[in-house]
Amino acid sequence: MSYSYISHLDCPKCGETYSDQEVQQLCECGSPLLVRYRLDEVKSQFKKEHLLTRENSLWRYHEVLPVRDDKNRMSLGEGMTPLVKMNALGEKMDLSHLYMKDEGIIPTGSFKTRGASVGISKAKELGVERLAMPTNGNAGAAWALYAARAGMKATIVMPLDAPNITRKEVAISGADLHLVNGLISDAGKIVGKVVKDQGIYDASTLKEPYRIEGKKTMGYEMLEQLNWKIPDVILYPTGGGVGLIGIYKALLELRELGWISAEKFPRLVAVQAEGCAPIVKAWEEGKSESAFWENSKTSAFGINVPKAIGDFLVLEGLYKTEGCAVAVSEAEISRAQKEVAESEGNFICPEGAATFATAEMLRRQDWIKAEEKVVCLNTGQGVKYPESVDMEDVSVLEPGEEIF
Amino acid sequence: MSYSYISHLDCPKCGETYSDQEVQQLCECGSPLLVRYRLDEVKSQFKKEHLLTRENSLWRYHEVLPVRDDKNRMSLGEGMTPLVKMNALGEKMDLSHLYMKDEGIIPTGSFKTRGASVGISKAKELGVERLAMPTNGNAGAAWALYAARAGMKATIVMPLDAPNITRKEVAISGADLHLVNGLISDAGKIVGKVVKDQGIYDASTLKEPYRIEGKKTMGYEMLEQLNWKIPDVILYPTGGGVGLIGIYKALLELRELGWISAEKFPRLVAVQAEGCAPIVKAWEEGKSESAFWENSKTSAFGINVPKAIGDFLVLEGLYKTEGCAVAVSEAEISRAQKEVAESEGNFICPEGAATFATAEMLRRQDWIKAEEKVVCLNTGQGVKYPESVDMEDVSVLEPGEEIF
Repeated sequence: MSYSYISHLDCPKCGETYSDQEVQQLCECGSPLLVRYRLDEVKSQFKKEHLLTRENSLWRYHEVLPVRDDKNRMSLGEGMTPLVKMNALGEKMDLSHLYMKDEGIIPTGSFKTRGASVGISKAKELGVERLAMPTNGNAGAAWALYAARAGMKATIVMPLDAPNITRKEVAISGADLHLVNGLISDAGKIVGKVVKDQGIYDASTLKEPYRIEGKKTMGYEMLEQLNWKIPDVILYPTGGGVGLIGIYKALLELRELGWISAEKFPRLVAVQAEGCAPIVKAWEEGKSESAFWENSKTSAFGINVPKAIGDFLVLEGLYKTEGCAVAVSEAEISRAQKEVAESEGNFICPEGAATFATAEMLRRQDWIKAEEKVVCLNTGQGVKYPESVDMEDVSVLEPGEEIF
Repeated sequence: MSYSYISHLDCPKCGETYSDQEVQQLCECGSPLLVRYRLDEVKSQFKKEHLLTRENSLWRYHEVLPVRDDKNRMSLGEGMTPLVKMNALGEKMDLSHLYMKDEGIIPTGSFKTRGASVGISKAKELGVERLAMPTNGNAGAAWALYAARAGMKATIVMPLDAPNITRKEVAISGADLHLVNGLISDAGKIVGKVVKDQGIYDASTLKEPYRIEGKKTMGYEMLEQLNWKIPDVILYPTGGGVGLIGIYKALLELRELGWISAEKFPRLVAVQAEGCAPIVKAWEEGKSESAFWENSKTSAFGINVPKAIGDFLVLEGLYKTEGCAVAVSEAEISRAQKEVAESEGNFICPEGAATFATAEMLRRQDWIKAEEKVVCLNTGQGVKYPESVDMEDVSVLEPGEEIF
């Protein structure tokens, strides 16, 4: 029994293969690399019943994760986030099986933690001592904190407008933080230069092959929590798109393992904001890649990504599952965020709120049927975006005053 | 098999008993009430092995929780928070078995959620439609959000200085929020008046008997995660003290159930801030109750409680377990918070940081031995206290600039 059944890396564009036992970034052809496992061996040696007694974190699936030696695992107990049934909201939306996978309930408070835990663990296994990355905030926070745990030095570059709290997370980790008066694409160029000049590890989205492995565990967990019964629709807020790519990869692997039915996949829905919708545009035009979205803007900062390096993989996931891509307005995002809190008691992030707004719209259009099983991904906590809540004037009482 | 084996409520001061099937607040003698169970029946019918296949939340212990009917359970997946081994920090502190129970990894981001989930569920079972409570922030946020889930109306009163983010949580839940230019004790008086005048449910700390039942699950979980082996020392940041009272109650129940050894209890340590240390003062003087602490002040807002209604129960827990009470300075809290982030990758709250500062001090004094098993309770996430991180000047780059 191996701890990991990793086999190698390969390129989804040109087919070139690479070893996971030395540092890899992009394929020579410029495409992201994907991790492959000896799934036939996993299938014969690891049964889903074994999960019953496994630890309560994403590492319960270590056979299909890339870390070869348990001792390199950097874990703060991340994963197995709640899958919450949303009865009150479902009733309002005429959906009898509405669920939320709540990625706010995880160390560092967003789904980015999954990628950081697995990515940093593998980097440690490979002897990496320094890394750099651009970020819209949450990923930088997660990678900086897990890098601290692993004793690595992290250089993080984020837009000036990224959520203020994520700066604090990076700062307290002891990482090297830089702000840029621009977008994540500008931060990416700065990182590209420092990586090239100083020869440090590039932890940018999909430029290192392992964060996607962490994120795919959202798919494994969701299916385990649904007792391996496939939902009809999964809605995902899509910036870089790694979460969606990861969930699609999980579905493919689970089918190969025989843990889920081979007949039907959930329809994957990429949710974007009207102010930054390159995937939606590409999907509407039936294209296999997206074009750079000029002057992008949305309060859902995590999905403010004008051009994703893995766009072709996201679009493949949508086409292959008969999914779709939808853009929602800022007003719809804000209204959905409030509605989820008032109806269900969850303070979710704007990105997560966008998926509920989309589910409601798709139900109205009958693209989703009333009795279908629908999972919305909330990618992080609302408290990391305090500015997303408009406070009306709150009265200030003096001691001894009364409420009427 | 019952869902709950609750028997009744009783008063730890005068011994009076009450029914849990109607609304109860304090005992007629003014003391908080405690919940009692038919533990002999639990012992014969429920084995700890049954937990293996239980759901991953505090409701896995429903036999020893007060909610009689599963349908009243208001759950967002709270509980089974990580118990993280702290190797790097332990080495610095000369502690070979240092753990953190991380209560940040829970809906609403603090341990207060446990009390809210169980308290609101029982209130719903009893038909409560309106409640009011004073709060230092986190409890109000948790109760407001769970009240929204239960369809109840909540009135929340918090000090003007309470963490700003917790206001946002209360606001988005749709609850009725009031600020007071004073301390939680001032907020408490305002709540007392509105409760009396309008006949609504008083959800103030220990004035409703059920939040302690939610909080005791920290003790159950910790022991389960340690494979039912008792740690030597548990350090708890102590404001109202309900967490410590709850953990002590859990230990007593677990001993009665025969799930832990009857011979030895962990030494319980109440951690306070130098600017608000009524329990420390009472313990140093060997008293059984504390006195009101004038002009209290600390950045660890959750433990800014000048006089706790359950102080006598906290002190009993310290005396009975041969524990102690310690006050730490603001500088020590701040340093410990940074050290935990840099060494271990956890961004914890100031209250949690106080327990690490205390553990270090007690180790230096050899009150804790190097090989003892020590659990520090981090009661919430650091991100809810962004002002606790001092940011040095961070350089702002223009697009195209370089990092050197």
